[in-house]
Amino acid sequence: MLSTDGFVVTPRFFPGGDIGSLAVHGTVNDLAMMGAVPVALSLAYIVEEGLPLDELRRVTTSVAEAARACDVRVVTGDTKVVGKGAADGLFVTTTGIGVRLPGAHVAAANGRPGDAVLLSGPIGLHGITILSTREGLGFESSLASDSRPLHRLAAAMITAGACGVHTLRDPTRGGLASALNELAAASGVGVELDEPAVPIPAQVAAACDLLGLDPLHVANEGCLVAFVDPARAEAVLAAMRARPEGACATRIGTVVAGHPGRVTMRTLVGSHRVIDMLVGEQLAGHP
Amino acid sequence: MLSTDGFVVTPRFFPGGDIGSLAVHGTVNDLAMMGAVPVALSLAYIVEEGLPLDELRRVTTSVAEAARACDVRVVTGDTKVVGKGAADGLFVTTTGIGVRLPGAHVAAANGRPGDAVLLSGPIGLHGITILSTREGLGFESSLASDSRPLHRLAAAMITAGACGVHTLRDPTRGGLASALNELAAASGVGVELDEPAVPIPAQVAAACDLLGLDPLHVANEGCLVAFVDPARAEAVLAAMRARPEGACATRIGTVVAGHPGRVTMRTLVGSHRVIDMLVGEQLAGHP
Ligand SMILES: Nc1ncnc2c1ncn2[C@@H]1O[C@H](COP(=O)(O)OP(=O)(O)OP(=O)(O)O)[C@@H](O)[C@H]1O
Ligand SMILES: Nc1ncnc2c1ncn2[C@@H]1O[C@H](COP(=O)(O)OP(=O)(O)OP(=O)(O)O)[C@@H](O)[C@H]1O
Ligand SMILES: [Mg+2]
Ligand SMILES: [Mg+2]
Ligand SMILES: [Mg+2]
Ligand SMILES: [Mg+2]
Ligand SMILES: [Mg+2]
Ligand SMILES: [Mg+2]
Repeated sequence: MLSTDGFVVTPRFFPGGDIGSLAVHGTVNDLAMMGAVPVALSLAYIVEEGLPLDELRRVTTSVAEAARACDVRVVTGDTKVVGKGAADGLFVTTTGIGVRLPGAHVAAANGRPGDAVLLSGPIGLHGITILSTREGLGFESSLASDSRPLHRLAAAMITAGACGVHTLRDPTRGGLASALNELAAASGVGVELDEPAVPIPAQVAAACDLLGLDPLHVANEGCLVAFVDPARAEAVLAAMRARPEGACATRIGTVVAGHPGRVTMRTLVGSHRVIDMLVGEQLAGHP
Repeated sequence: MLSTDGFVVTPRFFPGGDIGSLAVHGTVNDLAMMGAVPVALSLAYIVEEGLPLDELRRVTTSVAEAARACDVRVVTGDTKVVGKGAADGLFVTTTGIGVRLPGAHVAAANGRPGDAVLLSGPIGLHGITILSTREGLGFESSLASDSRPLHRLAAAMITAGACGVHTLRDPTRGGLASALNELAAASGVGVELDEPAVPIPAQVAAACDLLGLDPLHVANEGCLVAFVDPARAEAVLAAMRARPEGACATRIGTVVAGHPGRVTMRTLVGSHRVIDMLVGEQLAGHP
């Protein structure tokens, strides 16, 4: 399996990571969400003339450390330098090869009514950290990106699930809301979330209030959401909680047959609201 | 085998191709030069906000056509949009997977004294076409880039060579001079070129004269140079000439034991001059 992503994040360095570790985790996680074990990566840089060499060195060191921690090898790469003003400092594109895990049958279209919706950890940390660092809002002093590899967590879930893990998705750009809408559309099912069950860190909630953002739309780089056969949900949840990156795993809702393609949330007061995905223009401001 | 390259060419459209076909041919050819059959590609775009949608469509159509003609599949991709001024229109990164051809034992270090140096076709067409189109010099009306896939030519050579094809290289950025210097250094051998044997189209020679460039330093995207066992050289040459992209294949020199790492050229008047590679700053102006 092959997966590619470009990384154009501003700022390039932020609490919890940098463009280099993000580029490794992003592609490793895309492979992991396909039920694959990542094996090798390629690393392509587009560098703006004048980028301090030291920055390039720091990013490259970070790539190497992240790859080592993920147990993948960077086997080839490319570097192109463009004139001053022709790029914004540094763009990184990683492409990964992975091998399908035995027993993995995950696909966006595999969700079924009755499935438990499991989330591996708190949402909003990456997006708010980037936004706050970029704009100097101050939240970044007590927050860090959740950027981290998820392939071991995914493998543990697939093993524990015994074919019961139907879908896996990392809610990156567009946040949890967009990921769930995509899965709902692809599977032709509805999703019902339970508002109090969705783990939103206090500082994320505060920042979102201030900025007029919905935490469900904020990007994540270190959590995943899964639709899991209800008969296997407890076993999968236990396997998730046994790993550090899944320590806070929790059930946040249920897949339903009603309203196919739509995600709703049962609020604290018992009403239902529709959770839309972020599209086009709206995505632009989001990291 | 995995190979990746970023493409940042200006202008994006030029006689003989565009950034899309170039991105396909570039990665297909890098795999071909490793003795591999290209199988699948990933395609990552970084798009500057405001790029006319029609341009993106034309490039994508061109990618699809080039991939079809190469018999490779674009299996995944990515698109990132950055703000106005944060990129120069469009950057394309392709990554390719290939499978080693049975019988291929090519490596930059495999050249041996006595090997024939074979070139598949005329040099300088891509670089001069790009430069002339970019600067509006007029040569582009009678020239076109040589951008084209070389994997079938490489396969035919490897089959005909029966292990006698020691090195393969497409002399892209830095031109024939840089490719030969790299091969000479990697193999610990010298290279002696025969000046009148090197095929330089008249318009390329004229443009180089005008611009003060050495045609040996100008980029190519559709020819290859090989070091081949002298006992197999005629058979390999015949196999090259049997293919359209090798119709003008010719022997341009010999690998020697003297001056390891150095490339020299026997000129028309019988003297020898050293052919240096293009490095660092010098490369910047070259397409
Ligand atoms: N960002 C990177 N990460 C890892 N390896 C890299 C990176 N950039 C370049 N390399 C390696 O360095 C070598 C030179 O790569 P580079 O892209 O600069 O030149 P090239 O591929 O020979 O030329 P061109 O890209 O113009 O075709 C290659 O072996 C490549 O794999
Ligand atoms: N340039 C492209 N060529 C081929 N397929 C593409 C290209 N760009 C995007 N795609 C495909 O379109 C889909 C959406 O890709 P896109 O990169 O826009 O979003 P994403 O990968 O879901 O999000 P993110 O890149 O933020 O993680 C994917 O299936 C991807 O393979
Ligand atoms: Mg992605
Ligand atoms: Mg992803
Ligand atoms: Mg390269
Ligand atoms: Mg290359
Ligand atoms: Mg090349
Ligand atoms: Mg993507």
